[in-house]
Amino acid sequence: MTGKNAIGFSLSSKSERTFQTFNPITGDLNPTHFFEATIEEVDAALVLAQEAFLQLKKISLEKRASFLLEIANEIAKLDDELIQMYCLESGLSEQRALTERSRTIFQLNSFSKEIINGDWIKASIDEADAATFPPKPDLRKMMVGLGPVVVFGASNFPLAYSTAGGDTASAFAAGCPVIVKSHPMHAGTGELVAEAISRAAKKTEMPDGVFSNLNAQGFEIGQYLVQHPGVQAVGFTGSLKGGRALFDLANQREFPIPVFAEMGSVNPIVILPQILSEDLDLISSQITTSITNDAGQFCTKPGVIVISRSASSDEFVNELKKKVVKQISLPMLNSAIFDRFEERKKEVLSSNFLSFSESDLLIENNIGRQTVVVVDAKQYLKQHLLQQEVFGPLSIVVLCDDLIQLNSIVDSFEGQLTISFFGTDSEMLANKNLVQIASRKAGRVIFNGVPTGVTVCPSMNHGGPYPATTDARFTAVGIDSMQRFLRPVTFQNCHQEMLPIELKDKNSLRIPRRINGEWTRRDVHKKA
Amino acid sequence: MTGKNAIGFSLSSKSERTFQTFNPITGDLNPTHFFEATIEEVDAALVLAQEAFLQLKKISLEKRASFLLEIANEIAKLDDELIQMYCLESGLSEQRALTERSRTIFQLNSFSKEIINGDWIKASIDEADAATFPPKPDLRKMMVGLGPVVVFGASNFPLAYSTAGGDTASAFAAGCPVIVKSHPMHAGTGELVAEAISRAAKKTEMPDGVFSNLNAQGFEIGQYLVQHPGVQAVGFTGSLKGGRALFDLANQREFPIPVFAEMGSVNPIVILPQILSEDLDLISSQITTSITNDAGQFCTKPGVIVISRSASSDEFVNELKKKVVKQISLPMLNSAIFDRFEERKKEVLSSNFLSFSESDLLIENNIGRQTVVVVDAKQYLKQHLLQQEVFGPLSIVVLCDDLIQLNSIVDSFEGQLTISFFGTDSEMLANKNLVQIASRKAGRVIFNGVPTGVTVCPSMNHGGPYPATTDARFTAVGIDSMQRFLRPVTFQNCHQEMLPIELKDKNSLRIPRRINGEWTRRDVHKKA
Repeated sequence: MTGKNAIGFSLSSKSERTFQTFNPITGDLNPTHFFEATIEEVDAALVLAQEAFLQLKKISLEKRASFLLEIANEIAKLDDELIQMYCLESGLSEQRALTERSRTIFQLNSFSKEIINGDWIKASIDEADAATFPPKPDLRKMMVGLGPVVVFGASNFPLAYSTAGGDTASAFAAGCPVIVKSHPMHAGTGELVAEAISRAAKKTEMPDGVFSNLNAQGFEIGQYLVQHPGVQAVGFTGSLKGGRALFDLANQREFPIPVFAEMGSVNPIVILPQILSEDLDLISSQITTSITNDAGQFCTKPGVIVISRSASSDEFVNELKKKVVKQISLPMLNSAIFDRFEERKKEVLSSNFLSFSESDLLIENNIGRQTVVVVDAKQYLKQHLLQQEVFGPLSIVVLCDDLIQLNSIVDSFEGQLTISFFGTDSEMLANKNLVQIASRKAGRVIFNGVPTGVTVCPSMNHGGPYPATTDARFTAVGIDSMQRFLRPVTFQNCHQEMLPIELKDKNSLRIPRRINGEWTRRDVHKKA
Repeated sequence: MTGKNAIGFSLSSKSERTFQTFNPITGDLNPTHFFEATIEEVDAALVLAQEAFLQLKKISLEKRASFLLEIANEIAKLDDELIQMYCLESGLSEQRALTERSRTIFQLNSFSKEIINGDWIKASIDEADAATFPPKPDLRKMMVGLGPVVVFGASNFPLAYSTAGGDTASAFAAGCPVIVKSHPMHAGTGELVAEAISRAAKKTEMPDGVFSNLNAQGFEIGQYLVQHPGVQAVGFTGSLKGGRALFDLANQREFPIPVFAEMGSVNPIVILPQILSEDLDLISSQITTSITNDAGQFCTKPGVIVISRSASSDEFVNELKKKVVKQISLPMLNSAIFDRFEERKKEVLSSNFLSFSESDLLIENNIGRQTVVVVDAKQYLKQHLLQQEVFGPLSIVVLCDDLIQLNSIVDSFEGQLTISFFGTDSEMLANKNLVQIASRKAGRVIFNGVPTGVTVCPSMNHGGPYPATTDARFTAVGIDSMQRFLRPVTFQNCHQEMLPIELKDKNSLRIPRRINGEWTRRDVHKKA
């Protein structure tokens, strides 16, 4: 562990300012001193990244794919060292560390496969036609990388949404160099993974500058990065406030760049009366786990549970309170997150609510005591602070008088990553309109399941209307997330030898191409 | 001709403020008084549009496709009335009107076909797998419309980029209601087309509010629209200043929305020495037409021509000047555009240049006198005002000492819709690096052809890095332009009866779907 910044393949420590990470369980500082990146170092990383972007264009897709595979291998090889560092810096369990490492490796492998599969290239060829008026030229279009991408490590996913996480992997897959602004609370985990990426890059002969890793505790370096003329796109996972600030900075540039920020979502769960009475125990158990797992520090943690008053509703509320409170309270990721959780909890508990239960641990530093608050639907609608995300193990049960009121609650939701429904088949079918409303509000609509647990596969959408993200048109999970970092370019009447391999007559990569409007893997056969 | 605003299917004229269009050739006002839309009318249009958006979701793709076909039919039926109004308000030729009408109809028909073809839906299905840990749920993803879209009519394309132009057609195809802010300089053409759209909407039983047409002369109504909470996206074609202003407003909203603005591009043409000597006459003729056609009022007009000093360079410059100046000078679209052209020309002619030629017509109101300015490469690089778009028949020839300097000129370009090269095969192959630079700067790279004449087909990209557009990731021409107005939504473990028809096991629409990662048109076969 050096504590240094990785500027391409070189380690650098120009600043005299350093910081340490700390152990959220013991509160002790971890030993390594991390050097704050300087403006000079950021500039150097960007010079390298811009040059690397040009070099990357000349490197085959096969080699690019092997780079991602090799990152996965190098991360796997870190083994216990990585898992221990992860736990030390996050306070999360070893089991969670292992799961997240598996997911990180799985993601890298998926993108590696997709690079070769070539679906993302959206190659499109329209052959010339001299018979039309005016004569149609030969037009060939494909997706290419935007350029250097800045990725902000996420506090709650030290592996899967940080240094070599989804944003980094999708940007690499798109042919973009990546500059990671490492999350200061897990800078050690970040350094281990950064080294793994650098080793993989050297092994697969990637250009110097394909990757840099910068340490910084304050906001300045992140803000400087987003405004840097060499940066072409940004990936961020975190708070609404943080994401919006970067989004605003990027849009105020002379040359604006896209920022995909995954931010605030309350992930409502709506439970219909019939299923509530039938499956009360199972549903309350599932929701309890979803609220309290890893101290509720997930972007998909359910923050609102909407039910209608019925013969079972009181029992459900009591059962949920009991189960949630009974869980073991866990340390939160860091004191800033803990403080913010306590602050938001206080706000919620200053509202006009019906009842609440909080785990009755003595107040201990950094321990997120899980809390269930019950609110009348009318009061919920009136108080905007109840409708905003609380990051941590708190959930609000909204009690409706009837399904009409329940409808208006669902209609009141802001943009969400997810909205979940519990219902029997017959009551769901009788309430189709709820699903229609939900599909306008959320990126993912879930049936009889909880929102936590985001399966990584092509059909996943991890995104949604603002404030869930800054751009509902993209997903942050799955191979389609590459589209955030790609743009089309068309070549008109281009000589075969000058065309990128993806667009030559001979489809030597065997990628899917839309030839004269039809998707195929065949070659272009010149007319006689 | 009523001069009224179309608020859904109803005509409305609440304002006492009216304006008239005028004939750019005669300078006379045209007779109709157009009623400025009021805030109240905008609000009413948005209430209808939001309701229509919900209704549109329940309408089959087949019906949606028939709506677009019917718009095309209704526009064709307008026949002479439309062509005459177009010429009266734009000063453009009848031939141009006919060509643009054909293109408009062709675009509507293309989108109509694409609705049914279903490629744009990007349907994706991953089947459940209980054997994985954690068990994989059933996930099904598809693209859905963003919601009501505001389209700003473009001054230079009264048909193909205005009321029923590419933006409107692609938004309709994506299932989004459209509110057009009609261009005040061709409000009559707009009204005729708006009526055609309304007739088509009624005929094909589209909901009231699927389309509204608003008249406004100032900026206020446009600004109000972009900030309206009911609006979900914006399409704009026009100046950098106008596009950027709308982009900024949209990003400053509490809930930001995407603005696709197609703005400023100088569309450089780079000519290599060998071909210049071989095809001097042909090249100078092609470029002359591209500069002067319809008074150079195209977003793809070549504004910069880069050559290297050679035995033929002087002759080329003289030939180009001669040919350009010899063209008939044409009236510009309106006095604001004419004034801006004169202003920008004056700026260019106040720079440090080598020589220029301007057609020697007596200065007549609204006539855009075509101009060629010759500048030394060093001076071009020093003066940013030369690198910015001049809308109208003016082009700057940049004279380089050698190919090295020519390279640095190409490297200096800002984002462009197009960059064109003229070169023999051998000299293009010897200068591959130029093409690589160009493909980073432009949305379309053209060989041995001029940038004007944008073929409408799937492989066209009409877009490019800022300031050419506000988002290089999308095209404004071709079926892929629908993606600007679409977002993904995923259904997890959704009952077959609740799923949208696009995602049910049975693929009754026979659209392409990615099932477990493989594109196919087959049904999903449930495992036994």
